[in-house]
Amino acid sequence: MSAGAAAKRPQIFSSKLEEKVDWKRRKADIKESKKKRKEAKLIKQLEKQKENEDAERAKLEESQEKKGRAYTVSVALPGSVLDNAQSAELRTYLAGQIARACVVFCVDEIIVFDEQGEDVKSVEGEFKGVGKKGHACIQLARILQYLECPQYLRKWFFPKHEDLQYAGLLNPLDSPHHMRIDEESEYREGIVLDRPVKQGKGSFVNCGMRKEVRIDKQLQTGLRVTVHLDKVQNQESKIYKGVVVAPHVPRTEGGLYWGYTVRLASCLSAVFTESPYKGGYDVTIGTSERGSSMDQTTIFSHSLYWNIIIQHLLVVFGGLQGLEASVDADQNLDVTDPSVLFDHYLNTCPGQGSRTIRTEEAILISMAGLRQKITAAFSDVSSGS
Amino acid sequence: MSAGAAAKRPQIFSSKLEEKVDWKRRKADIKESKKKRKEAKLIKQLEKQKENEDAERAKLEESQEKKGRAYTVSVALPGSVLDNAQSAELRTYLAGQIARACVVFCVDEIIVFDEQGEDVKSVEGEFKGVGKKGHACIQLARILQYLECPQYLRKWFFPKHEDLQYAGLLNPLDSPHHMRIDEESEYREGIVLDRPVKQGKGSFVNCGMRKEVRIDKQLQTGLRVTVHLDKVQNQESKIYKGVVVAPHVPRTEGGLYWGYTVRLASCLSAVFTESPYKGGYDVTIGTSERGSSMDQTTIFSHSLYWNIIIQHLLVVFGGLQGLEASVDADQNLDVTDPSVLFDHYLNTCPGQGSRTIRTEEAILISMAGLRQKITAAFSDVSSGS
Ligand SMILES: C[S@@+](CC[C@H](N)C(=O)[O-])C[C@H]1O[C@@H](n2cnc3c(N)ncnc32)[C@H](O)[C@@H]1O
Ligand SMILES: C[S@@+](CC[C@H](N)C(=O)[O-])C[C@H]1O[C@@H](n2cnc3c(N)ncnc32)[C@H](O)[C@@H]1O
Repeated sequence: MSAGAAAKRPQIFSSKLEEKVDWKRRKADIKESKKKRKEAKLIKQLEKQKENEDAERAKLEESQEKKGRAYTVSVALPGSVLDNAQSAELRTYLAGQIARACVVFCVDEIIVFDEQGEDVKSVEGEFKGVGKKGHACIQLARILQYLECPQYLRKWFFPKHEDLQYAGLLNPLDSPHHMRIDEESEYREGIVLDRPVKQGKGSFVNCGMRKEVRIDKQLQTGLRVTVHLDKVQNQESKIYKGVVVAPHVPRTEGGLYWGYTVRLASCLSAVFTESPYKGGYDVTIGTSERGSSMDQTTIFSHSLYWNIIIQHLLVVFGGLQGLEASVDADQNLDVTDPSVLFDHYLNTCPGQGSRTIRTEEAILISMAGLRQKITAAFSDVSSGS
Repeated sequence: MSAGAAAKRPQIFSSKLEEKVDWKRRKADIKESKKKRKEAKLIKQLEKQKENEDAERAKLEESQEKKGRAYTVSVALPGSVLDNAQSAELRTYLAGQIARACVVFCVDEIIVFDEQGEDVKSVEGEFKGVGKKGHACIQLARILQYLECPQYLRKWFFPKHEDLQYAGLLNPLDSPHHMRIDEESEYREGIVLDRPVKQGKGSFVNCGMRKEVRIDKQLQTGLRVTVHLDKVQNQESKIYKGVVVAPHVPRTEGGLYWGYTVRLASCLSAVFTESPYKGGYDVTIGTSERGSSMDQTTIFSHSLYWNIIIQHLLVVFGGLQGLEASVDADQNLDVTDPSVLFDHYLNTCPGQGSRTIRTEEAILISMAGLRQKITAAFSDVSSGS
């Protein structure tokens, strides 16, 4: 800084010149002053550059501080899509395709709705194995949950089950919360262990690391928890330390994608009415080849809207017979035209070269198209603030 | 027209009024002239409307005349992607996913390139069945060709083959050139039959219709041909009539998606150098999570460019190890950085929630993103002219 401050007052234009001109001396002086001017300019440039860099860094730090993602994305589809598979193996594979499509686009909630009136509400109980038709909602939900669960927790949460008979064929989700054993991370998913701790000393949690983690709170054995690991760990200690946080914290504070929750809905309307978010979904999109072209639709009209007002986006897909069939099967719905249920009813693939697009394909295609629009709306906000 | 022409000169402002005013008469006259004026106005409006409608119709007809699509889209990927499947059934299913992804986005050419130096050039010969690793390029190419072939032609072009052992698991492409028997269409794919026709009387072709089609040219038995059926057919006749056209005609003149061709390339560089298009590909895109964000990239900078100058777009995907591995395996390439091979090296899924996107997923995601850009560039042209 001192060099820079000095350089800011470079005395190259002295107002009084000697009366008697010594030309040789003069020339040398001029040369010298030119050199000084050049140096000064350079220093000024460097200063400017440093200033810019500092500003950039401050901006970056600021943006990293608020790197969290406030909004959520939910995807709903009928469990009946599984019945469109030709073998037990492909049935399982299809469920895996859906899970992966949602993870690639950072979907926070997957809702499996019943469009056949089976009225399912829970994934508990005994079923007949994934090979059979029927029970599609529960099978799909179970496979989705299985895949979402970090590998190191599966032995606890997913004991052997017929629905998971072909789980070996599933492609891994490879999402950020599926940590490898030595991977460093601020957050980790874990299970509360059945290991006695002194009263008031919290609980032990297995987070799939080489050591166990002691958390601040005493929690019920077998609970799945999200742990925020302390920044500084005592490497000598036999345990790591951390605190339990809400599952949304890695997303809202860390800006990380942290997997999805799975919800079963007994019919299409329950997708809307049983939203886990206070106030429900803010923007709802139905998808259909008979929707309006997504290219001509402004979904997030005011970009500020998005991050500030819009919090929860819902995108709904139909099954083999489209959302019309889901509407028909729903006793609570008087309408026949699905489009009235949504803020937008979109054709996300205008000009498609196949007569029908399968639901698992439509998820990738639609979310790829929507991603650009969401990102654009969202980045306007951040760069504008 | 005569009523309109008369109405165009309505004599309601006669310059000389009678000196002596007969007020009753005057009132009646005024009323009459008002009525005439009103009528004239209406007629004028109707004329204008008709004029507009005519203009609209002319425009529409003109646009329908040039409804053809001049440009082509090619997709290239390594056959090795099949080796990423966990069973013989899934290997077949994966090939089907690739075919469907390409059809949904109206891809005209699929190039299967070898990144393992197997140096394949043809899909002829005997192989070991689709269950075995290796020969992935040929297996993929064969399944792609099989799926592209209209069902009614398959018994001729695809006699039983081990690569097609699990073809029953494949989802149909349902593309416009896969006609049902009674479907009406200007164009149809067919096979030249071994049925004697008098010299100069053309050949018989099976186009999957209830009657056979006699075409203008005498062609070799067993050839697959694209037939343009005559607009007016003699319903009494035992045959239909049509003319043979080049396979690109349904696309370039009819604006229809007409399936894809399959090409084998012995290495990545052969994808470029052995292009079937004179002058090769005009815009080439490589895909990678390490590419620049597609959201920030202008691909078709000048929209006019696209339909007039750009004719052939190529989009290249990598396998399990990405395009780096394909570059490494290619003896003809000195570079190690794949990005230098392409006009654009794009990340088509910025912010992906999974560490890796599989090639079959990347095709749907990337083409969904590019579709919007292509459509935008293309519709600028049509609406601008
Ligand atoms: C097999 S398709 C349904 C086809 C059904 N025959 C129909 O006409 O709706 C399954 C689902 O994929 C989605 N889908 C298919 N094509 C689509 C398109 N072009 N745009 C948006 N969504 C589409 C919709 O959610 C649809 O319900
Ligand atoms: C399994 S991925 C390759 C992963 C490999 N480890 C890499 O780093 O490139 C297979 C192919 O999918 C495509 N792909 C995957 N992610 C992509 C992305 N974000 N953007 C564009 N293409 C992607 C690329 O063509 C890639 O070669």
